[in-house]
Amino acid sequence: MLKNIPEQISPELMKVLMEMGHGDEIILADGNFPASSHAKRLIRLDGLNIPEVLQAILIYFPLDEYVDDPAILMEVVEGDPVEPLIWEEYEEILTQSSEKGKEVKLHFLQREAFYERAKTVYAIVATSEKAQYANILLKKGVIKKT
Amino acid sequence: MLKNIPEQISPELMKVLMEMGHGDEIILADGNFPASSHAKRLIRLDGLNIPEVLQAILIYFPLDEYVDDPAILMEVVEGDPVEPLIWEEYEEILTQSSEKGKEVKLHFLQREAFYERAKTVYAIVATSEKAQYANILLKKGVIKKT
Amino acid sequence: MLKNIPEQISPELMKVLMEMGHGDEIILADGNFPASSHAKRLIRLDGLNIPEVLQAILIYFPLDEYVDDPAILMEVVEGDPVEPLIWEEYEEILTQSSEKGKEVKLHFLQREAFYERAKTVYAIVATSEKAQYANILLKKGVIKKT
Amino acid sequence: MLKNIPEQISPELMKVLMEMGHGDEIILADGNFPASSHAKRLIRLDGLNIPEVLQAILIYFPLDEYVDDPAILMEVVEGDPVEPLIWEEYEEILTQSSEKGKEVKLHFLQREAFYERAKTVYAIVATSEKAQYANILLKKGVIKKT
Amino acid sequence: MLKNIPEQISPELMKVLMEMGHGDEIILADGNFPASSHAKRLIRLDGLNIPEVLQAILIYFPLDEYVDDPAILMEVVEGDPVEPLIWEEYEEILTQSSEKGKEVKLHFLQREAFYERAKTVYAIVATSEKAQYANILLKKGVIKKT
Amino acid sequence: MLKNIPEQISPELMKVLMEMGHGDEIILADGNFPASSHAKRLIRLDGLNIPEVLQAILIYFPLDEYVDDPAILMEVVEGDPVEPLIWEEYEEILTQSSEKGKEVKLHFLQREAFYERAKTVYAIVATSEKAQYANILLKKGVIKKT
Amino acid sequence: MLKNIPEQISPELMKVLMEMGHGDEIILADGNFPASSHAKRLIRLDGLNIPEVLQAILIYFPLDEYVDDPAILMEVVEGDPVEPLIWEEYEEILTQSSEKGKEVKLHFLQREAFYERAKTVYAIVATSEKAQYANILLKKGVIKKT
Amino acid sequence: MLKNIPEQISPELMKVLMEMGHGDEIILADGNFPASSHAKRLIRLDGLNIPEVLQAILIYFPLDEYVDDPAILMEVVEGDPVEPLIWEEYEEILTQSSEKGKEVKLHFLQREAFYERAKTVYAIVATSEKAQYANILLKKGVIKKT
Amino acid sequence: MLKNIPEQISPELMKVLMEMGHGDEIILADGNFPASSHAKRLIRLDGLNIPEVLQAILIYFPLDEYVDDPAILMEVVEGDPVEPLIWEEYEEILTQSSEKGKEVKLHFLQREAFYERAKTVYAIVATSEKAQYANILLKKGVIKKT
Amino acid sequence: MLKNIPEQISPELMKVLMEMGHGDEIILADGNFPASSHAKRLIRLDGLNIPEVLQAILIYFPLDEYVDDPAILMEVVEGDPVEPLIWEEYEEILTQSSEKGKEVKLHFLQREAFYERAKTVYAIVATSEKAQYANILLKKGVIKKT
Repeated sequence: MLKNIPEQISPELMKVLMEMGHGDEIILADGNFPASSHAKRLIRLDGLNIPEVLQAILIYFPLDEYVDDPAILMEVVEGDPVEPLIWEEYEEILTQSSEKGKEVKLHFLQREAFYERAKTVYAIVATSEKAQYANILLKKGVIKKT
Repeated sequence: MLKNIPEQISPELMKVLMEMGHGDEIILADGNFPASSHAKRLIRLDGLNIPEVLQAILIYFPLDEYVDDPAILMEVVEGDPVEPLIWEEYEEILTQSSEKGKEVKLHFLQREAFYERAKTVYAIVATSEKAQYANILLKKGVIKKT
Repeated sequence: MLKNIPEQISPELMKVLMEMGHGDEIILADGNFPASSHAKRLIRLDGLNIPEVLQAILIYFPLDEYVDDPAILMEVVEGDPVEPLIWEEYEEILTQSSEKGKEVKLHFLQREAFYERAKTVYAIVATSEKAQYANILLKKGVIKKT
Repeated sequence: MLKNIPEQISPELMKVLMEMGHGDEIILADGNFPASSHAKRLIRLDGLNIPEVLQAILIYFPLDEYVDDPAILMEVVEGDPVEPLIWEEYEEILTQSSEKGKEVKLHFLQREAFYERAKTVYAIVATSEKAQYANILLKKGVIKKT
Repeated sequence: MLKNIPEQISPELMKVLMEMGHGDEIILADGNFPASSHAKRLIRLDGLNIPEVLQAILIYFPLDEYVDDPAILMEVVEGDPVEPLIWEEYEEILTQSSEKGKEVKLHFLQREAFYERAKTVYAIVATSEKAQYANILLKKGVIKKT
Repeated sequence: MLKNIPEQISPELMKVLMEMGHGDEIILADGNFPASSHAKRLIRLDGLNIPEVLQAILIYFPLDEYVDDPAILMEVVEGDPVEPLIWEEYEEILTQSSEKGKEVKLHFLQREAFYERAKTVYAIVATSEKAQYANILLKKGVIKKT
Repeated sequence: MLKNIPEQISPELMKVLMEMGHGDEIILADGNFPASSHAKRLIRLDGLNIPEVLQAILIYFPLDEYVDDPAILMEVVEGDPVEPLIWEEYEEILTQSSEKGKEVKLHFLQREAFYERAKTVYAIVATSEKAQYANILLKKGVIKKT
Repeated sequence: MLKNIPEQISPELMKVLMEMGHGDEIILADGNFPASSHAKRLIRLDGLNIPEVLQAILIYFPLDEYVDDPAILMEVVEGDPVEPLIWEEYEEILTQSSEKGKEVKLHFLQREAFYERAKTVYAIVATSEKAQYANILLKKGVIKKT
Repeated sequence: MLKNIPEQISPELMKVLMEMGHGDEIILADGNFPASSHAKRLIRLDGLNIPEVLQAILIYFPLDEYVDDPAILMEVVEGDPVEPLIWEEYEEILTQSSEKGKEVKLHFLQREAFYERAKTVYAIVATSEKAQYANILLKKGVIKKT
Repeated sequence: MLKNIPEQISPELMKVLMEMGHGDEIILADGNFPASSHAKRLIRLDGLNIPEVLQAILIYFPLDEYVDDPAILMEVVEGDPVEPLIWEEYEEILTQSSEKGKEVKLHFLQREAFYERAKTVYAIVATSEKAQYANILLKKGVIKKT
């Protein structure tokens, strides 16, 4: 533990977030996501849910402002009646974390496309999130000279 | 050994079952299956037969209910007079383990197709099962919020 | 995730619990414990507290009934006014998990002795528990023939 | 699997038996033995019992005829009323496997001494044997020119 | 060394033979074969010739009876006047080892095809055999329930 | 790079700082310190000086408030006329970083004792600091519940 | 540290520069570059800027004189108003380091092409440079007999 | 060092030469060759020139007599006025080492083709040879029964 | 295989012989010697006997002429009627290999002392030699300037 | 190869020289020295002699000026008539390399003491030097601020 760093961020996760550069992507995966079989780098956060991890990560992680889709969700499969309430929670967290308070609009990928994308991202964080369609992909932006 | 966990499940096998996610597949292979040459992850259970391992695994392992073929066998090669009696045993075990007591129908892949599929599954468990055509592939389902 | 296994138990933790035998010891360490420098095997559960982990582990983990001190805490350093309320919570969890509902009495080691002991245990689980004097050592018992 | 080799002998176990030389020792450990924490080399045979493994091993493994105690058990702890029936089974298997049909007498080590010895043996085979006091240490003999 | 196991079979070779399954292939390579550059798994038996190794292996190794070509040699290159006498020795050893005393007919691959095949086999055993065209590929069969 | 984290802290250094617990020690070593031969874990920050690294680290790293000597320097060898001006800089940085603005007094170890201690600390950070007697050891404190 | 070698060159960086041969390429990457995800070999120089690293490297590193483009930058993306002042600094350093005082002209690759090229270079040096479009690729030349 | 083995042959080089078989290739590379980026197996002989290494290797290494081009050089690039005098030295060493005193004619590959071939050879020996166009590829022949 | 190098010397054995220096020791062990449990570096030569290996090694390996006991055997245990005929064979091979044709006298260590020494030697070569008391330790001498 | 760096310094040797700090020691060992069995880190420079390596190293490597014995040789064993002429060569090279042209006096350790010391030094460089008593140990000094 360190001063000011939320407990949801493990040493390994922090290292990975710091190593990532402009355009690198990370997925926060729910408990049913096949994370181990798809991840180049796997970080397990067993027992945690995605919203608390997302909130902690966004303190440090800049979203890519050069693209339209810095945050991507898995589209509800056709015919599935589920309404993923957790998406609203994500939108709220993302917008609050946005530097200029600018709303961050979520984008979507079909299930299979999301799985294919998962094989290419820098890291996957395996949580125990139980909400459905809760996986979220974040694309890293740049740190500007200050 | 732990309380309530059958002895057929080795520590490594339990770890692998826990790491797997929705859609990941595992094969319980008989003693003649070329497991070591086909497996991404190999778990040896020398001296054990498949039914006892299958029964133990299904205590923890949810079958995929979103697909038609969560359990796949290797089709009898044309011209081979063998009648794999072990299949009935599998069907019984699968149905008994099914949450809603719903019958689980077995599906089939031709020998070569089964071998190709074996190279892609998350793990292969190498048993000493001596029955012919005894290999069985299981596709993992989801754990629902409760 | 698997059926019936609490999300606080990571695949690696379950594997370690299964590998342990009679007399092997494990420490659930709080967030300030120097776990990485003392552990032979380190399992991180960042973001979790000890009570929820303890409760989950005791579903599977038999305490050693052949010894007086199957559960050991770090003694309060002389002069420190702290009263570790979390100990009562531990006692309750341990007693509830005890097979015969028998009360499990906690034992104590001085701080330095606890640190020395930590270097010899089978594994240390590093949690984010923030309560003081919250580290707890468990000694594994036997599974009896049934 | 190979012709004439019992299924209880895994590839890794056979390799270890072949690597051992005169005077090297191996322990067949029961399911509660702390095998992983004591073994220089660990071979898991989850789901198997010791008698079937012992019988299979003795087809290949010569006991040391130059010493008095080529087979050693863990002594019953003082005050423990257990009568380990499995010992008779061992004696029978050992005697039957003895080349000259000569009776093999079992020797004993106190519990703590057995644990210390376990740290020095060439390999420990972790079985799921549930009988108490079932651990057995074997000392390898020589293959004579024929 | 173990009782009844020929000295030509090293611990590593025995392990590999046991790991192989139905359809897996192994090459016994002569001293000039580029074994190290072609092998997925390399087992060196320096100082030994192929016939003694072949004879030892066939005690344990079942040839595949479901295919026409369970034993394959490298065809003599066109224009090369060599007559590989060692082939007759192989045929004799193979036929003697055949369970039903059935003659085992040798098949052939052109040099380049043999090299390509070598990259795919489970293991290559590098001997010091000096006869020309002495490489032999064996395809593993099945162990039947008895 | 991440938001709000100084560039002097490499991903590996941050990971190490997070892994450390109460009582674990870290040394910021100057360019001439034999860091590689003494470190259990070595982190290189070539091209950087110690004050900038110290300042960055103290944003996250709590000094141990339970001991008298949370910050230790290497004593000037007897007879050496050097007056390490950098020590004042350290004192200032430490005091400014102290949570309660409380002055942090530096302690000292003789050269040989410092070298011996270096072999036991959790990590050594090898900088290119050129000032003499510039090595500084920091002992980690605790993060209190808030 | 060694005599005459600038502190910006870490031991690992020097080793890599020495291992490189004619035509091998290295990228000095700015702090936002996705170095870890693109590098075959990654060298971190956290806290340093590119000009000081470039200047140090060119003491030892010969630019390829057989090609037109021994030094390559990432082209400004169309529509981006940035004017990378750091390029002039690079040109000056390169020309000063040129053996014959000959001006070294910089070449350019489009952003995506630069990223693709980055996956093939011998090593990427990850600095904390904050200037935009500051990444620079160097192609190694030959050392002539003297 | 051993009796009768030239000092230019390192233990690792000798091992590699012995492991190679008929048709395997090795490159002796000059000091500017990008050996580390092209080699499957890299052997460094810093400070040595190629002729002394070539002479030492040919004591043990049989050139392939079944092919036209057992020794291959890199062709001078069109327009380059260099005349590689070292080639004559090579021819002399090769012819003297030839078993039947038969002249060994050198063959050539264009620069790019040589680089591509380098990626496929069994090993590359990185020397400090400073002559231009000094790289030489050798193809191993067979040891005949004697 | 290479020209002039006996087939009994494997690539790994040659590498080890070359790495050894003045005073380093090697043991040629018989088939019953506990080589794997005693060796720092283990080289297996399954199927070979010691005399052929000894003869091959002595072509390259200088015995230490500065000590009285460059070749050491295991003394016959008191009471054992064995007369190890192989010792004479050793003496003959050693004397024939001696540079000046000088007789090499064999020295002896008691069994336990030989085992202790075995743990310290540079390498142990595990053969399948079946003669009793056949283990032999060789101490390496120096190569003189010529 | 790099500009201005002598070819006798391999990439690995340069890395090691840079990693060493004040008081760390390195041995340049002759061809008969048991380098591999004594070295913590081994660097092979087969085919090179010590004087050329020593000269190259001293361009970068500062000798320790705070001790009396920064350069240590192995004393001639009593009774040995050898007069190691190479020592004068060393003295000359050391004195020439000394920053202030100050003579560097060589110190001595008895053979056994030198061997013991060898086990503790940072690295041993194994050359093919054939002169007797040619081993030399160097202790690294400091780089002063300039």
